[in-house]
Amino acid sequence: MTNLPISSDLVAEHNTAREEALRDDYDSLGRRLERSGIAIDAIKDRVKQWSVAVPSWGTGRGGTRFAKFAMAGEPTNIHEKLEDCSVIQQLGRSTPRVSPHFPWDKVDDYAGLAEEAFGLGLSFDAVNSNTFQNQPGQAHSYETGSLSSTSQATRQQAIEHNVECIEIGRKLGSRALTVWVGDGTNFPGQQDFGRSLDRYLEAAAQVYRALPDDWTMLLEHKMFEPAFYSSVISDWGSSLIAAQELGERCRCLIDLGHHAPNVNIEQIVARLHHAGKLGGFHFNDSKYGDDDLDSGSIDPHQLFLVFNELVEAERNPRSGFDPAYMIDQSHNVTDPIESMLSSAEAIAGCYARASLVDRAALQEAQECNDVMLAFRTLRSAYEIDVGPILAKARQEQGGAIDWLGAYRESQYRDRKAQERKPVGLGAGIV
Amino acid sequence: MTNLPISSDLVAEHNTAREEALRDDYDSLGRRLERSGIAIDAIKDRVKQWSVAVPSWGTGRGGTRFAKFAMAGEPTNIHEKLEDCSVIQQLGRSTPRVSPHFPWDKVDDYAGLAEEAFGLGLSFDAVNSNTFQNQPGQAHSYETGSLSSTSQATRQQAIEHNVECIEIGRKLGSRALTVWVGDGTNFPGQQDFGRSLDRYLEAAAQVYRALPDDWTMLLEHKMFEPAFYSSVISDWGSSLIAAQELGERCRCLIDLGHHAPNVNIEQIVARLHHAGKLGGFHFNDSKYGDDDLDSGSIDPHQLFLVFNELVEAERNPRSGFDPAYMIDQSHNVTDPIESMLSSAEAIAGCYARASLVDRAALQEAQECNDVMLAFRTLRSAYEIDVGPILAKARQEQGGAIDWLGAYRESQYRDRKAQERKPVGLGAGIV
Amino acid sequence: MTNLPISSDLVAEHNTAREEALRDDYDSLGRRLERSGIAIDAIKDRVKQWSVAVPSWGTGRGGTRFAKFAMAGEPTNIHEKLEDCSVIQQLGRSTPRVSPHFPWDKVDDYAGLAEEAFGLGLSFDAVNSNTFQNQPGQAHSYETGSLSSTSQATRQQAIEHNVECIEIGRKLGSRALTVWVGDGTNFPGQQDFGRSLDRYLEAAAQVYRALPDDWTMLLEHKMFEPAFYSSVISDWGSSLIAAQELGERCRCLIDLGHHAPNVNIEQIVARLHHAGKLGGFHFNDSKYGDDDLDSGSIDPHQLFLVFNELVEAERNPRSGFDPAYMIDQSHNVTDPIESMLSSAEAIAGCYARASLVDRAALQEAQECNDVMLAFRTLRSAYEIDVGPILAKARQEQGGAIDWLGAYRESQYRDRKAQERKPVGLGAGIV
Amino acid sequence: MTNLPISSDLVAEHNTAREEALRDDYDSLGRRLERSGIAIDAIKDRVKQWSVAVPSWGTGRGGTRFAKFAMAGEPTNIHEKLEDCSVIQQLGRSTPRVSPHFPWDKVDDYAGLAEEAFGLGLSFDAVNSNTFQNQPGQAHSYETGSLSSTSQATRQQAIEHNVECIEIGRKLGSRALTVWVGDGTNFPGQQDFGRSLDRYLEAAAQVYRALPDDWTMLLEHKMFEPAFYSSVISDWGSSLIAAQELGERCRCLIDLGHHAPNVNIEQIVARLHHAGKLGGFHFNDSKYGDDDLDSGSIDPHQLFLVFNELVEAERNPRSGFDPAYMIDQSHNVTDPIESMLSSAEAIAGCYARASLVDRAALQEAQECNDVMLAFRTLRSAYEIDVGPILAKARQEQGGAIDWLGAYRESQYRDRKAQERKPVGLGAGIV
Repeated sequence: MTNLPISSDLVAEHNTAREEALRDDYDSLGRRLERSGIAIDAIKDRVKQWSVAVPSWGTGRGGTRFAKFAMAGEPTNIHEKLEDCSVIQQLGRSTPRVSPHFPWDKVDDYAGLAEEAFGLGLSFDAVNSNTFQNQPGQAHSYETGSLSSTSQATRQQAIEHNVECIEIGRKLGSRALTVWVGDGTNFPGQQDFGRSLDRYLEAAAQVYRALPDDWTMLLEHKMFEPAFYSSVISDWGSSLIAAQELGERCRCLIDLGHHAPNVNIEQIVARLHHAGKLGGFHFNDSKYGDDDLDSGSIDPHQLFLVFNELVEAERNPRSGFDPAYMIDQSHNVTDPIESMLSSAEAIAGCYARASLVDRAALQEAQECNDVMLAFRTLRSAYEIDVGPILAKARQEQGGAIDWLGAYRESQYRDRKAQERKPVGLGAGIV
Repeated sequence: MTNLPISSDLVAEHNTAREEALRDDYDSLGRRLERSGIAIDAIKDRVKQWSVAVPSWGTGRGGTRFAKFAMAGEPTNIHEKLEDCSVIQQLGRSTPRVSPHFPWDKVDDYAGLAEEAFGLGLSFDAVNSNTFQNQPGQAHSYETGSLSSTSQATRQQAIEHNVECIEIGRKLGSRALTVWVGDGTNFPGQQDFGRSLDRYLEAAAQVYRALPDDWTMLLEHKMFEPAFYSSVISDWGSSLIAAQELGERCRCLIDLGHHAPNVNIEQIVARLHHAGKLGGFHFNDSKYGDDDLDSGSIDPHQLFLVFNELVEAERNPRSGFDPAYMIDQSHNVTDPIESMLSSAEAIAGCYARASLVDRAALQEAQECNDVMLAFRTLRSAYEIDVGPILAKARQEQGGAIDWLGAYRESQYRDRKAQERKPVGLGAGIV
Repeated sequence: MTNLPISSDLVAEHNTAREEALRDDYDSLGRRLERSGIAIDAIKDRVKQWSVAVPSWGTGRGGTRFAKFAMAGEPTNIHEKLEDCSVIQQLGRSTPRVSPHFPWDKVDDYAGLAEEAFGLGLSFDAVNSNTFQNQPGQAHSYETGSLSSTSQATRQQAIEHNVECIEIGRKLGSRALTVWVGDGTNFPGQQDFGRSLDRYLEAAAQVYRALPDDWTMLLEHKMFEPAFYSSVISDWGSSLIAAQELGERCRCLIDLGHHAPNVNIEQIVARLHHAGKLGGFHFNDSKYGDDDLDSGSIDPHQLFLVFNELVEAERNPRSGFDPAYMIDQSHNVTDPIESMLSSAEAIAGCYARASLVDRAALQEAQECNDVMLAFRTLRSAYEIDVGPILAKARQEQGGAIDWLGAYRESQYRDRKAQERKPVGLGAGIV
Repeated sequence: MTNLPISSDLVAEHNTAREEALRDDYDSLGRRLERSGIAIDAIKDRVKQWSVAVPSWGTGRGGTRFAKFAMAGEPTNIHEKLEDCSVIQQLGRSTPRVSPHFPWDKVDDYAGLAEEAFGLGLSFDAVNSNTFQNQPGQAHSYETGSLSSTSQATRQQAIEHNVECIEIGRKLGSRALTVWVGDGTNFPGQQDFGRSLDRYLEAAAQVYRALPDDWTMLLEHKMFEPAFYSSVISDWGSSLIAAQELGERCRCLIDLGHHAPNVNIEQIVARLHHAGKLGGFHFNDSKYGDDDLDSGSIDPHQLFLVFNELVEAERNPRSGFDPAYMIDQSHNVTDPIESMLSSAEAIAGCYARASLVDRAALQEAQECNDVMLAFRTLRSAYEIDVGPILAKARQEQGGAIDWLGAYRESQYRDRKAQERKPVGLGAGIV
């Protein structure tokens, strides 16, 4: 039924050569966990059920305002992007869904696209609208913003685009719309904060009204960029106000790179969960701003702490806990397939580690204010090398024990560099 | 009736010598404003009606965990503090109210204290509770937090202290309770974010229930310090959640130094106003953290932008707009009287500048997306030197044109250094 | 000789209508300053002698990685850019020099270009090289960095480009080369910090060796972007190390937006001056990162504090004080001509305010540790509205009292929108 | 000879019960490392040779300006502090040296103190001077700063105190003086940046002249606190300038919590090493400012990256590489003994992980710009759970496999709570 891009034989052979070492590592870890009363297979099974969506746009090389350095063989349309996503899923087995972005992924036949994805072992996740860029032939410019623009016509255009995204998403089998707007200002005084939010809310309400009953509308806040003085939905507080006003099926999406310096993001996760408005995640990592680096590459411990909240919430859910998980990264210097395989593994690893936390012991230490014991209960789970669990989970699902080695051996990118049309010079727009 | 600490003759003489220069400056500015259609006297009258409370604790030298350098003549009890506040009000005429702090300002006779303040030309503003320090003889330690402590007895003690503060405040004529807790953690895992907030909300609800009908309960959030990994009410989003849950008369108080780096505080002002939860301000300035520096000393333009929101809100109020204004600073290297006079002037100056903004022109430029014109409409008001307006307002109310000169000429501090008992070495608690 | 883009009659008429008001404001301020012992004309003369270079690339609309919103009538080649710079200088009279950027400003005939500039009332300032983008037909990609690349051929290409920039600069009458590299990494481990700096220094030394005797080589550091984990020359310390090693005529250039959050930039100015390595400035403003906003638009007080250091250094120069001043901004939502006029005025205004500081009083207060007096001595200069001084200086040099009004009345941009070829869609490179 | 505070039998028994599990974990890891060509015993031997000093002041409870919550049984003099340090060393076996602080650790008989330490299995590391606090009976106040004060007498007092510290240190067997000053300002204009540094350098030169030939003078920079606008030695650039001017034996000390937000500290390590001025470390962790949290508790990956630089430098030393390692933390909510055991283990763990990096593979990937491979080469070492190596190293040296369990079983603190005099209320100095 499915026709995967990499030869299954290659993967199988590759795994065979690594099987024995994996068995030793997995069994050793199993004995160790057993001494703490944890069954390693149960954790492995949790990992196998875990998944995160990949972004269609993440399959191409990203760039900065200064430059983009194209890569031979990178995809230039949604069909090629799906093929690359299929490689990621085939080898990693934790990314069965693709989050599309419109108009970037527009095609004529969405039923056909859904079928094509299915044939590659994939389905579609949350749909992303784009009102931060002008498109050829577009009637109204987003220079003045989109859902919050002072121009009624521009707002209407932005509303209609979002509604169209919902329509497309229905055809693709999606169940969520992610709304991120670049609306904001570069100068004090450029717009009035209150009236901008009023306009945003009024326009967003019209999008919300078009939402099917079983869909979620995800609001993504961002501190800055492309606007550099203020952004309309700049922080989780603004996002919460909007989600509260828009309605039950509107929730807040956390992108790990969209916060002020030093902010405790894991507490924001807990706060939005407390308010019943935690909608989902855009995973990535950052050191300075919205750097869109590979998940876990800069601060793997913070990613673990985020998952500690998620696993805690899973065990003690408050109303409406059902977050959507997506990767959202910009792969400026790596092969995006490798980066997303690495990221998905880092994310799944944090989920595994958070699943290893002895939560009864943790809660007891917290109740007793035994600070050191509470800290070490959490930390000892973080320090466990869950690599063998992840590898075993991949192997059992048909993926690669050593995804990097298998991918490189497959020479997939080289073949694509022969087949695909080259991408032009990305000159930057400083 | 009132018996002010500085000789009125001294102030009057001091003013006489500066009157002519002030008249020239005031008239010159008047002509200039008139050319823009603004009547200078109307602005001056607004300034005269404006006021901000000073904190009783701000009259003493502040310090850091490393050291406190005491100053000869600083006050050591609420009576001496009131006397110093009276000097500030006498010379500056914009700080007629004092915000007390308990147990620091405890006395036996609160009716007498209110009378004493009245005799000094003062009254009392919002009451501040203190559950971040242990007091001699206290039954339960706040080491584990206060309103959010896992210990029921500790929470109860914190609740009772807040209720007692309300009781005292009623006797003093206050109408608001400011609640800031230092509750938080220093280690990941030390406490559970969700359960900590649950406990906080349950305890705070009991304080809220004790609130008189015409009182406001002000929640003050803070990013960090004394807790260095997480704080229970760390940001405006958390504060909003709490204020929403606690009730109509619970609002959020913004301390300008309690935010993450780079955050757009003026937009937070607008957002809380939009949500009907803007309760008040603790004015100060900062460069790094909760530095508690003099208002406007580091970023005077940000203070102006905050007031731009406040004057805008005053003209276009949403439900419940009636914020309380307080100074909250730590005067580590200056005479606190001088610092608070300087700060009150800086704050009033921003109010004056924000009042000078041509709001019709600003809104029109915003509607037209004339970014440069909108920016310059705001900026041109900021650049006006409102010193003459402030000085005239002081003079007309009996204050000093040149408050620094008059204060120093009065030798008030030298006299107090003779009269008051010296403060011991502040050795720091690193 | 010169043939300026705006009708002189228009400017003159425009000024006539504003002359009387300006005279009143200028005279009023003059009386006020005289009372402090300052001759207003002396300050005005200082302002007239002050100038700052504008960047050729700043005349076009800037953008972000998400989008660029083109503006009708924006320039698309160096000739049109020079024309726009001429407008800025004609109306503002403080920006007589243009800083070019190669290969963006490449032409066949540099002698002709210099003549062209001269005819527009302009000359050329520091030359900027570009090794952060690939150019069509370029042999080696800068994907791996430029002066610090592991590839010897790439480093050589970058060296040769810089040397070519010097050659072009000589023909244009420049006397400085500004070197900013985007070299850095996105992942921990991607490169070795020490060996990267070794390669950079070795390559930069070859550029330095090509420097004419009367030239300065300016090293521009930047914390992040386009590299998001580390940058080779990321901070002033790294820049200092490099400048010390490269030689006497190598100095450090400070871009106001290239620092970590909260950093005290004015102290960095003082430190580099102390080390004899303060080479120059790229003026702009920012709230979050390298936002490249208009100078003084976000934190005008910080700009003043920077100039306080510069005027102090001017009065008490240490070895080699002769900084180069340039604007470096990205005008994403305004007409770049208006933004640069506004910015140049903001910069000159800070220079004027810093010139008004009573430095003898300041130093005396500092020596006495009279903190409040020292602060207020500085602050009182900042609060002076120097607008009349700047306007008078412009008027006397043939510029416009009200540059914004005059510019708009001239309908310059509208005319250019007719004449110039339109700029395509800037689709962003997320 | 030595008389350690905890019963050796208790430790031995405790270890016996954990020996078998450790053997399995150690052997399993050994097999795994062997498959990568690494001999686990070689890494274990490196760990055994590794050590870090503990601060005498860190044995007591720390606090903030708001409060200090004392702990029963905390030490109140250097003798008790040494006893606690001895426990740390006995159980953890990686902290054989104590860094003293004067005047806090003053005694009459330093030869006796050195002997006392020796009897507890300890010796003395770098001496810390204190010129940020006034001491009883001190002639001149440090309110105006110390080495940079405008007051010549104050500077002289600070110089003499540092020289006295050197004298004491000689008696104690120290070989380094750590100089951190709190000098700085709270207001723009309070002091002149250049003249402050001049005074600092002149005074520090006098301290340097008193330095024995085999000593190092370590300059510790800090961004802010206790000064909140500027600090004289605020960043590594300022520290470098000072160390360069003072002389060969003057080096820079990095405290991990003294930097601006987002700064790449591991690159600063590399830069100071490149400049031949990397002197040493104060290990701790932080999320917001100088939080002085337990090493590795907030960002364990950053600590690893720092050690990656140190191990790299060890293998490819440039001139003068011989850094001093110290812990510098404030234990506000934990038992300091537990915190320092935990911290020392975290630090040693990072050293072990950094020692596991396949540096040949890393360098080759860097040379080839194989970004993903370089990243994963580093990351795979970080993800190894080195716990068994650390535990084995402890056990072989007489320490405890499970230091927390053994310490608690010993009931050391309870006994001290009986023996030692209680510490008073720490009321804070807001």
